Amino acid sequence: MNCLKKLLSICILICIGSSCQPTLEKRLPNIVVVFTDDQGYGDLGSFGATDFSTSNLDKLATEGMRFTHFYAGQAVCSASRAALMTGCYPNRIGITGALFPWSKIGINAQETTIAEMLKPMGYATGAIGKWHLGHQEPFLPLQHGFDEYFGIPYSNDMWPVEFDGKAVDSTHRKFRYPPLPLIEGNETLEHITSLDHQDQLTTRYTEKAVDFIKRHQAEPFFLYLPHTMAHVPLGVSDKFRGKSKQGLYGDVIMEIDWSVGQIMATLDQLNLTENTLVIFVSDNGPWLNFGNHGGSTGGLREGKGTTYEGGQRIPCVMRWPSVIPAGTVNNQLASTMDLLPTLANLTGATLPTNRIDGLDITSLIKGNTTSSPRETLYYYYHQNDLEAVRHQQWKLVFPHVTTQSYRKVLPGNDGWPGPYNKDTTGLALYNLRRDPGEAYDVKALYPEKVDLLQKIAAEARKDLGDNLVGIKGENVRKSGAL
Amino acid sequence: MNCLKKLLSICILICIGSSCQPTLEKRLPNIVVVFTDDQGYGDLGSFGATDFSTSNLDKLATEGMRFTHFYAGQAVCSASRAALMTGCYPNRIGITGALFPWSKIGINAQETTIAEMLKPMGYATGAIGKWHLGHQEPFLPLQHGFDEYFGIPYSNDMWPVEFDGKAVDSTHRKFRYPPLPLIEGNETLEHITSLDHQDQLTTRYTEKAVDFIKRHQAEPFFLYLPHTMAHVPLGVSDKFRGKSKQGLYGDVIMEIDWSVGQIMATLDQLNLTENTLVIFVSDNGPWLNFGNHGGSTGGLREGKGTTYEGGQRIPCVMRWPSVIPAGTVNNQLASTMDLLPTLANLTGATLPTNRIDGLDITSLIKGNTTSSPRETLYYYYHQNDLEAVRHQQWKLVFPHVTTQSYRKVLPGNDGWPGPYNKDTTGLALYNLRRDPGEAYDVKALYPEKVDLLQKIAAEARKDLGDNLVGIKGENVRKSGAL
Repeated sequence: MNCLKKLLSICILICIGSSCQPTLEKRLPNIVVVFTDDQGYGDLGSFGATDFSTSNLDKLATEGMRFTHFYAGQAVCSASRAALMTGCYPNRIGITGALFPWSKIGINAQETTIAEMLKPMGYATGAIGKWHLGHQEPFLPLQHGFDEYFGIPYSNDMWPVEFDGKAVDSTHRKFRYPPLPLIEGNETLEHITSLDHQDQLTTRYTEKAVDFIKRHQAEPFFLYLPHTMAHVPLGVSDKFRGKSKQGLYGDVIMEIDWSVGQIMATLDQLNLTENTLVIFVSDNGPWLNFGNHGGSTGGLREGKGTTYEGGQRIPCVMRWPSVIPAGTVNNQLASTMDLLPTLANLTGATLPTNRIDGLDITSLIKGNTTSSPRETLYYYYHQNDLEAVRHQQWKLVFPHVTTQSYRKVLPGNDGWPGPYNKDTTGLALYNLRRDPGEAYDVKALYPEKVDLLQKIAAEARKDLGDNLVGIKGENVRKSGAL
Repeated sequence: MNCLKKLLSICILICIGSSCQPTLEKRLPNIVVVFTDDQGYGDLGSFGATDFSTSNLDKLATEGMRFTHFYAGQAVCSASRAALMTGCYPNRIGITGALFPWSKIGINAQETTIAEMLKPMGYATGAIGKWHLGHQEPFLPLQHGFDEYFGIPYSNDMWPVEFDGKAVDSTHRKFRYPPLPLIEGNETLEHITSLDHQDQLTTRYTEKAVDFIKRHQAEPFFLYLPHTMAHVPLGVSDKFRGKSKQGLYGDVIMEIDWSVGQIMATLDQLNLTENTLVIFVSDNGPWLNFGNHGGSTGGLREGKGTTYEGGQRIPCVMRWPSVIPAGTVNNQLASTMDLLPTLANLTGATLPTNRIDGLDITSLIKGNTTSSPRETLYYYYHQNDLEAVRHQQWKLVFPHVTTQSYRKVLPGNDGWPGPYNKDTTGLALYNLRRDPGEAYDVKALYPEKVDLLQKIAAEARKDLGDNLVGIKGENVRKSGAL
């Protein structure tokens, strides 16, 4: 064996010992995922928000890494959660759009969640908040790898109550909705019956989260905290009402910021900060037709329910003091789908046997800011419409109708929604490096990029299908069903 | 004197002693202002840029404060420089738009520049780079408070050369332009004759800047470094050519980032970092019709030459380790006009006797992230058109024609410009908290905000005038003239 080969072998051994697999001596890292609802790309201080402060989240960013090109799996509640929890495009596993109180489907038992993946490694697992991957018992967290669950099973506007808090009458489309359950384990603990009642949710989740961390401080834990807020109808506890300069939406984000601060303080008190990976991320862009009760995309086009950047690009901050370089910004492409395989690598857990779409972004977390394992992203919407694909900085948008466009209509106000517009789009190429606002179609300038992206789209269609062009994918699995 | 009064007196004394005036024992802070050209709000890593890295500027942000609502005085070269250098709206002092090689005007000798303000305090003052406040001798830096000057006197596209580097013929509008001078002191040192020649400018400025700091390390200094780049035609030295993943524009920004790194390293070597305020800021938004040779607004509307956010909101980072809290983000409204009075406060220098528009933002620099002394901003364009006004998060846009709109036209490519569009706008109210992209007019929802902003506009018109409605301002001064 010559010198060069020897050196290479030593390097490989160091790599295996130090980063690719956890050493047996070192305790596995704790993992906290805070997942907020309808919080836009522009709704954190460190992402340019104004008229409310997010000092704890800004501190988290200062102590960790801020991601500026981080994406939801799809720009709507259930689908986005499915992507985070399984590392798959939501349409691959049959969970698209938002599930409703009358839905009889949910996450399939054959899919592996992050919690199920971590359990064999000895993790205590807790889910606290909005689940939205099926509210029937077979689909609830306890049946999918979590030891504990506390929260509401779907969105907080899926109840027989108007936006002003009044019960709806029999002529209203929400009349058939059951009361909103608050579930502990598999049982309904109580029903959320009023806006006042909702106001307590962020604080109650936070208390439960702090309690979970305290009870499991002696073992590795995975805490998944998908907040109900900032989904409408907005609710905030008295301690934050009126605290922001811009109104209720700002108050709500400030309470979420406080919640993150409580978790950070608890980790500090228990001396767990160094060995805990905290991930803060939103489920999709802001619901813009709620006007002043909606968030901000920071200038990106459109919002929730669209495949434009305002719908799918989300704020993300990660902190893990012993691993993530402090005060860094990562501008590489990544997605919530990438969390599962990354956590597998970081903990030594075994990947799901089912095919997944997530990519291991450990290198990004450790400070690589120049290239990402992820170069491609598919933007699916509705049940299976491939509305756009991305390769590096280039995004090709296919002809489609944006059914939930916020343009050219007046938004709502003070809790009431405005209407949607229908916006018809032709083929368009955007260079997201110079044009993150998707305002300047440059397909005439870069036909070679159009060709490349069309090839990527063809791969997506073969794999996952595309209702827009009538192709059924080869590798689509089914949701769970009653 | 009762207890309350006593306490108040003590507080005032502490304030005067500790922050409002420098103590005599302590050396006055050094001040470095790096002012880049046509770099957009989205063109720094910490502001979401992709496909090039700005590691030194990201480090500067981590060690200092990032401003997300920082504004140029006007969205074009000369006007923006006039605002920074004098603390005035550019139309107040008669410098609007961009000066040309045939201009016979420049900054008036009656105006006080930052350099002139700092000289009596014992500052060594140097300007290195693009001046653009008049290229005739009476208007050059040495006649306006600077001890030293090295650079080109106006924009680097104001020469008899096409964008491909070829000399223009007599039919070309640029044929009457003189060769581009590189000036040292008041003398022309050489002429920039080719694109290759231009490629050296960023490095040459940097070497001069480092030399200036070294020569003046024993005294307080004010270094003003207005880079020629990233103004077209783009130029980059060989050490950065091809270094970014996205092409020449990225290479250029990476060289500017390197330049900032050289300054940071020099301050470190000389043990000056702790007592030096470094300010990094751009002059206006990106020149979007240059396509891949232009920058990015990060999603904000329009770019250079417009009063939309993409034109006037600029990236800004400040570092001063002993004063500015590290790793912070400031989302309060501020402007380059505010630098002069703030530097007056920080150094104890005497404010100009002429009326200025800048406000002292020392409180923001020291970490106040909840309110700004500046609540209002006027968005003037052309010679004296009041196209918009802002109060806190609200911006009222007045009916006008955007002559330099980038929408609905194909941008240029590889150094050649695309055309402008003419975009006619009616009255529109934007809530910049939820809608920094200025996409959703909400005047119908907030008539009281429209009223408030109309009142502010009336004040602006009385004070500075408004050609759009034919009002001549009461307090407009004149530029200098030959």
